[in-house]
Amino acid sequence: MTRSTALLTDRYELTMLDAGLRDGTAHRRCVFEVFGRRLSGGRRFGVVAGTGRLLDAIRDFRFGDDELKYLRDNRIVDATTVEFLAGYRFTGSISGYREGETYFPGSPLLTIEGTFAEAVILETLALSVLNFDSAVATAAARMSIAAGERPLAEMGSRRAGEESAVAAARAAYIAGFSATSNLEAGRRWGVPTMGTAAHAWTLLHDTEEDAFRSQIAALGTDTTLLIDTYDIAEGVRTAVRVAGSELGGVRIDSGDLPIVAAEVRALLDELGANGTRITVTSDLDEYAIAALAASPVDSYGVGTSVVTGSGTPTAGLVFKLVARADADGSWVPVAKASAQKASHGGRKAAFRTLDAGTATSELIVVSDGFEHLSTAAEHPDARALQVPLVVDGEPDATALGAAGVAAARAHHARVREELPVRALALSRSDPALPTEYVEA
Amino acid sequence: MTRSTALLTDRYELTMLDAGLRDGTAHRRCVFEVFGRRLSGGRRFGVVAGTGRLLDAIRDFRFGDDELKYLRDNRIVDATTVEFLAGYRFTGSISGYREGETYFPGSPLLTIEGTFAEAVILETLALSVLNFDSAVATAAARMSIAAGERPLAEMGSRRAGEESAVAAARAAYIAGFSATSNLEAGRRWGVPTMGTAAHAWTLLHDTEEDAFRSQIAALGTDTTLLIDTYDIAEGVRTAVRVAGSELGGVRIDSGDLPIVAAEVRALLDELGANGTRITVTSDLDEYAIAALAASPVDSYGVGTSVVTGSGTPTAGLVFKLVARADADGSWVPVAKASAQKASHGGRKAAFRTLDAGTATSELIVVSDGFEHLSTAAEHPDARALQVPLVVDGEPDATALGAAGVAAARAHHARVREELPVRALALSRSDPALPTEYVEA
Repeated sequence: MTRSTALLTDRYELTMLDAGLRDGTAHRRCVFEVFGRRLSGGRRFGVVAGTGRLLDAIRDFRFGDDELKYLRDNRIVDATTVEFLAGYRFTGSISGYREGETYFPGSPLLTIEGTFAEAVILETLALSVLNFDSAVATAAARMSIAAGERPLAEMGSRRAGEESAVAAARAAYIAGFSATSNLEAGRRWGVPTMGTAAHAWTLLHDTEEDAFRSQIAALGTDTTLLIDTYDIAEGVRTAVRVAGSELGGVRIDSGDLPIVAAEVRALLDELGANGTRITVTSDLDEYAIAALAASPVDSYGVGTSVVTGSGTPTAGLVFKLVARADADGSWVPVAKASAQKASHGGRKAAFRTLDAGTATSELIVVSDGFEHLSTAAEHPDARALQVPLVVDGEPDATALGAAGVAAARAHHARVREELPVRALALSRSDPALPTEYVEA
Repeated sequence: MTRSTALLTDRYELTMLDAGLRDGTAHRRCVFEVFGRRLSGGRRFGVVAGTGRLLDAIRDFRFGDDELKYLRDNRIVDATTVEFLAGYRFTGSISGYREGETYFPGSPLLTIEGTFAEAVILETLALSVLNFDSAVATAAARMSIAAGERPLAEMGSRRAGEESAVAAARAAYIAGFSATSNLEAGRRWGVPTMGTAAHAWTLLHDTEEDAFRSQIAALGTDTTLLIDTYDIAEGVRTAVRVAGSELGGVRIDSGDLPIVAAEVRALLDELGANGTRITVTSDLDEYAIAALAASPVDSYGVGTSVVTGSGTPTAGLVFKLVARADADGSWVPVAKASAQKASHGGRKAAFRTLDAGTATSELIVVSDGFEHLSTAAEHPDARALQVPLVVDGEPDATALGAAGVAAARAHHARVREELPVRALALSRSDPALPTEYVEA
């Protein structure tokens, strides 16, 4: 049941291809790079997410009859280009940062090598996937830092486009959330799912007590009851009366949370429900979570803010040509010259320098020549950041599916440990590590 | 090539269903409503979008083998519920605001009638679609107002999740944009597509002149050349030298746009290219567009800001139970009582009152009884805002596909005309119309 991703593409990519097939430049070997000029939103670090999804999407980037008919009927490209696209399959190579890796301005998150023709048409798809998923993962990591040991559940599906919601659940899980409400993220990516009940459940019943009794009969006493449909104190009393002191949890979705959580905790304890957990879910972001650190809250449900990147809904990554072959086949590093958007031409090797296990810089070694790319052996005090993701068109199988998500989550937890303490603060600031460019 | 939308759903909907099938309440007739408590982001009006997409998604909300296997294997629901879901098809009715309609706090954008079982499980899907699409349409309408007669192209696919990008292109078109760069939006929804060229196109070639010559050979002199890869003035001279004074357009993607646009216009005119259009595309939002009103700009390309709702990436709509049948079948209006999130129970009829063609209020007539809903005939000085969207499970065919998008765009253009002048200002403010609740 795959769907072609081939038209998730900006028209100019196909018209450039069309013109390049006419003048022959479409067959020039090229190196494109995905990177961010800055960390949007004053973030101190970024988190790469979407890589595994992108590898799937590149595999499905095939032009079928429907896609070709649209291009032909609307005269987007000529017959030669339609024929080229009919046989299109990406056969180049992609290296890049592992999913879950942290990144900084200029980090070469992806390096795509192939002909201009096969690489340029992946621009929009690659950026759509990585920009959204990385924005969510970056925000989620901040929330995970703010929450400390308390579990976080992603519950924001309703505040993101329906497919972005699945991607957001996946990205948040990679960056440290422990579960999602989104069932498709469970099915497709193996993210653990969770849920409580809506106010509609209580309102459907003649009384709050009826609703609680029914939920417990179906889901057991370990379930979480939503106690703020009518009066919170009354809701807590009813919950404990119905479930007994073994009640798993209560959810609070409104009110001034530090005050309400303390009151609910005191009441639960008074009623003997000392083990009943409190989940709060009302418009939380990383700052609200941090403000609840001293409150008797056991877990957080986060909606809007995580799926919208907490004020930064796109990571701002770009896809740029950094080198190409000449007519005679020799490599030329290239870069746009305009002042505000200048970038570094040339192929890059990236390393995280470390001092006693703590990261000190993002070291980017720029190669003009291409005969020699800097290797890990030359940087014994640093961690090499790039891995092969696609080799001659074949994706790295370990990055795919639920196993890829689990690996990305584990990798993120590991590499977050190496960040300096200043990276963990929530306020807007400069990147926590300097990016240093050196010539190979 | 349809894909099931059934698991684009929060887990709690299915566990509530599960518990409701056990205690019998799942079969109670219910009325759910989609509305916004406020206009997020200090907007003066909202624009409904996504309705046609939602009707498609509800049609595809069927549980196939993959979905049922996931629910069974992960013990999300019991065998009775799996059986119910296997036969699930929404057979209820939905009325609501037309796609493209303007809305205000409390506007009942959708009213969903059916059993609790069939309606509650649509919550997440309905909100995902409407919240994202309406946020984009609302931002796009503001940009369209700022741009006046100058055309706007949506070019933000790379800054939104790959499927949300298609939805964003569609929503922006409904709210007044004239085209998109996104090819899938062209294929799926009939949105006109456009494009120029990327910096990579110029960098691929040995010289800027080679790149321009090739583009013109392929696309004709009416194409738009990107002139800021190296030096803007040199780029303009090269463009006119290559294309002649018939050059269709130039695109500027960097620099201080009011200054650069004026310089480029003067140079084009000096070179005799008086008819060559100027398109600007660098990080525009409604405020930047308004600031360019006096500059010699012919069209705008808008990316990040429109696909992310220009600071308000979700419309903040909610899906709430407003009435249900009792055990004896009589209707009971219901609403959550908590102070901060209180809502109005009961079924609602909505009207836009008008004075000499200008809207004066959002009139919401609340019915407790359900025998009698307020009708248009009772409000001769007002426009009835609700239309049937799904009747006994059958979607309104005129709302679907490319024809539905065209109708929504035309409807939006019409109803935007009736807004009072104060609705058209860009600054953050209160809603431009008061919402008035009256009893039926």
